[in-house]
Amino acid sequence: MRAVDLIQKKRDGGELSREEIAFLIQGYSKGEIPDYQISAWAMAVYFRGMNARETGDLTLEMAMSGDQVDLSPIAGIKVDKHSTGGVGDKTTVVLAPLVAAAGVPVAKMSGRGLGHTGGTLDKLESITGFSVEMDRERFFTQVGEIGAAVIGQSGNITPADKKLYALRDVTATVESIPLIASSVMSKKIAAGANAIVLDVKTGSGAFMKTLDDSIALAQAMVDIGTHLGRNTVAVISDMDQPLGFGIGNALEIKEGIETLKGHGPKDLQEVCLILGSQMLVLGGKAKDEEEARSILLSHIEDGSALDKFKQMVTAQGGDVSQIESPDTLPAARKFIEVKAATAGYVESIQAEEIGVAAMLLGAGRETKESVIDLAVGIQLSLKVGDAVAAGDTLAVLHVNDASESKVQEAEAKVLEAYRISAQPVPPQPLVFALVTKDGVTRY
Amino acid sequence: MRAVDLIQKKRDGGELSREEIAFLIQGYSKGEIPDYQISAWAMAVYFRGMNARETGDLTLEMAMSGDQVDLSPIAGIKVDKHSTGGVGDKTTVVLAPLVAAAGVPVAKMSGRGLGHTGGTLDKLESITGFSVEMDRERFFTQVGEIGAAVIGQSGNITPADKKLYALRDVTATVESIPLIASSVMSKKIAAGANAIVLDVKTGSGAFMKTLDDSIALAQAMVDIGTHLGRNTVAVISDMDQPLGFGIGNALEIKEGIETLKGHGPKDLQEVCLILGSQMLVLGGKAKDEEEARSILLSHIEDGSALDKFKQMVTAQGGDVSQIESPDTLPAARKFIEVKAATAGYVESIQAEEIGVAAMLLGAGRETKESVIDLAVGIQLSLKVGDAVAAGDTLAVLHVNDASESKVQEAEAKVLEAYRISAQPVPPQPLVFALVTKDGVTRY
Repeated sequence: MRAVDLIQKKRDGGELSREEIAFLIQGYSKGEIPDYQISAWAMAVYFRGMNARETGDLTLEMAMSGDQVDLSPIAGIKVDKHSTGGVGDKTTVVLAPLVAAAGVPVAKMSGRGLGHTGGTLDKLESITGFSVEMDRERFFTQVGEIGAAVIGQSGNITPADKKLYALRDVTATVESIPLIASSVMSKKIAAGANAIVLDVKTGSGAFMKTLDDSIALAQAMVDIGTHLGRNTVAVISDMDQPLGFGIGNALEIKEGIETLKGHGPKDLQEVCLILGSQMLVLGGKAKDEEEARSILLSHIEDGSALDKFKQMVTAQGGDVSQIESPDTLPAARKFIEVKAATAGYVESIQAEEIGVAAMLLGAGRETKESVIDLAVGIQLSLKVGDAVAAGDTLAVLHVNDASESKVQEAEAKVLEAYRISAQPVPPQPLVFALVTKDGVTRY
Repeated sequence: MRAVDLIQKKRDGGELSREEIAFLIQGYSKGEIPDYQISAWAMAVYFRGMNARETGDLTLEMAMSGDQVDLSPIAGIKVDKHSTGGVGDKTTVVLAPLVAAAGVPVAKMSGRGLGHTGGTLDKLESITGFSVEMDRERFFTQVGEIGAAVIGQSGNITPADKKLYALRDVTATVESIPLIASSVMSKKIAAGANAIVLDVKTGSGAFMKTLDDSIALAQAMVDIGTHLGRNTVAVISDMDQPLGFGIGNALEIKEGIETLKGHGPKDLQEVCLILGSQMLVLGGKAKDEEEARSILLSHIEDGSALDKFKQMVTAQGGDVSQIESPDTLPAARKFIEVKAATAGYVESIQAEEIGVAAMLLGAGRETKESVIDLAVGIQLSLKVGDAVAAGDTLAVLHVNDASESKVQEAEAKVLEAYRISAQPVPPQPLVFALVTKDGVTRY
């Protein structure tokens, strides 16, 4: 078998067999097939696509390229959740304890933020002492005892995906649905869950800008899960503005706590209830979404969701008093209001711009080596649909040590992110569609 | 400027500017842009194509990446000729002296054979003592005095094309018309001729299997020549069988000598007259093809074309007595007849198979390092349209030191190459079309 022949086969619209995909990915992992052949293959895939079988096989090869977590020591149906990169998305912080309170074990491996997107691990670390590192045994024990744990990925999960993703990033081959889908799903498969709920963002701040593309990506991922024996559903949710009001690590933990108490932003709570309901149904703890939703609401109302979060924080070494008094979480020293130049109605808030602005303030990483400031970020004052007068505060920058020029840049980005319409803006749907192995339901 | 953005621009169907193409090719030449980005770009070009301006700019960048030959010390309009890889194609051996005899200076840089295609330099070296290496000054002097010289390419002609071609070869990005056209033309531009006649082969043995593809390639090359101020025409000629009867270095020189004497195979003579006529017209030595043809025929008839070849051989250190007595050229020791298994009519002779068979006997190189045997090869006995009875000799293998298994393999390939039809085969056209800057004339 020769790599050049497989590149040509894909280039000419052919279907690669299981063995051919294994040859490419294993050869690439071992360094036997060079970058320049894999980048040409990836570009051919960009143009020709891959069918569900090929995408599933690619996912499995990447999943098997490194460690695979065996969650079977943990009783019950383990349900994982994944969001395709949003801004202000603190759903994991809310869902891990909320779903665990309802009896679905959450053994979650999360990531760190890069560029304009945040990472759950960074957010949780704004709780003093919170540790995201523990060995496999303790991880299992914690999930078994408390029902939830959120840790960092082990060093050797899906190394083939990491290598391929780094190559795609510099060869303009990122934006391919089968390649995106297999990259995401390989990590989920290697992480060992029995069932997977995906939150695919759509809109200006998402990877997929149109609903059709988002649905296509969701379908590709659901197909992979189905192909590999994992019950998988995907929710298509809005990213025409950040989720909630807080963007920045401690700001997002605060908002997560409020949501667990039932006082969070409407959009964040609603997305959490929708995703959480899917998790409960897949986890066998509710017969349908309606029942699941009422179970989740009851855990918010009776305080057991917040209690579960406190248990998780305590178990992972975090200072639980900060959950009880969120004002003691890291806070910035300076607050700069960004004011509207024109009157009208907020039409959209470009989430990517807001994410970049938060990064400039130090909340996110410009490169993998950047050190972040857990206290800083952006607190939105107005959201889509709100009326705005000239001079109104659109958002507040929470600033510590960022240079004057970075702060100015962040300020300009926030102002730019707010698109103001002269006409009233009708309410926007929060969730557009549900994709399961049986098809697409549009709302 | 970042390579990844240019890859993406091409991927999305955009047009790269002169500066952007220069950035890619110069960066690649210097090793600043890695193989994996250029292979992804080449695959994007495979799918998206390039317009005439981009292709011309790419050609020029590659032409300028190394030495550029300045032929201006040689008086007159220098006309170059290039054939896109055929089997049994000894037109350069005939045309260099024939056209020079008619007063068009031929300062030709040729190549060596690789794989199933032969190389003019190897063919000429079957004349004892013939040297294809000389310095620029002697090259110019010889062309000035005799009118013709055929030498090897200097070491540093179009290094960017060499690097890119080697990469395309292993990334399934060879078969792209703008990339093929710019590769061929970059060498022609760097070689310094004022006008260029291209012989684009079409058919089973050619790079381009269909007439439409061959015309498209010819148009791309003529466009480049026009864009870069070189008067360029292309002839589309048949490669549904090898040209002439001899395949193998000394065998082809013998056939070339016969053709210069006016006793060569009809197809070879006709292709030489067609290409030579174009060269005379572009070189300003004939007002039209008809006049050019009669000039060329007169030089064959009066012996001046053969004389010119002898002068060229003498000037390049070759043993001219071998031209006078071609039987003294290197000859094989064993002759194996390949006989027809079935009766009928020769429908086609797969030129690539014949080329590979000759390579197996030692006439061509399997790798760049292979040592070739100038004496061996294949002499066809029957050509397309000929009637054949079972047991008739189709071709004769000229063998020296090839192993028994290689000879058997060559024999099988030759037998396989001959497609025999039960029905009589009508005469095939030898030349299908002429492509000039004014358009395509189909015959």
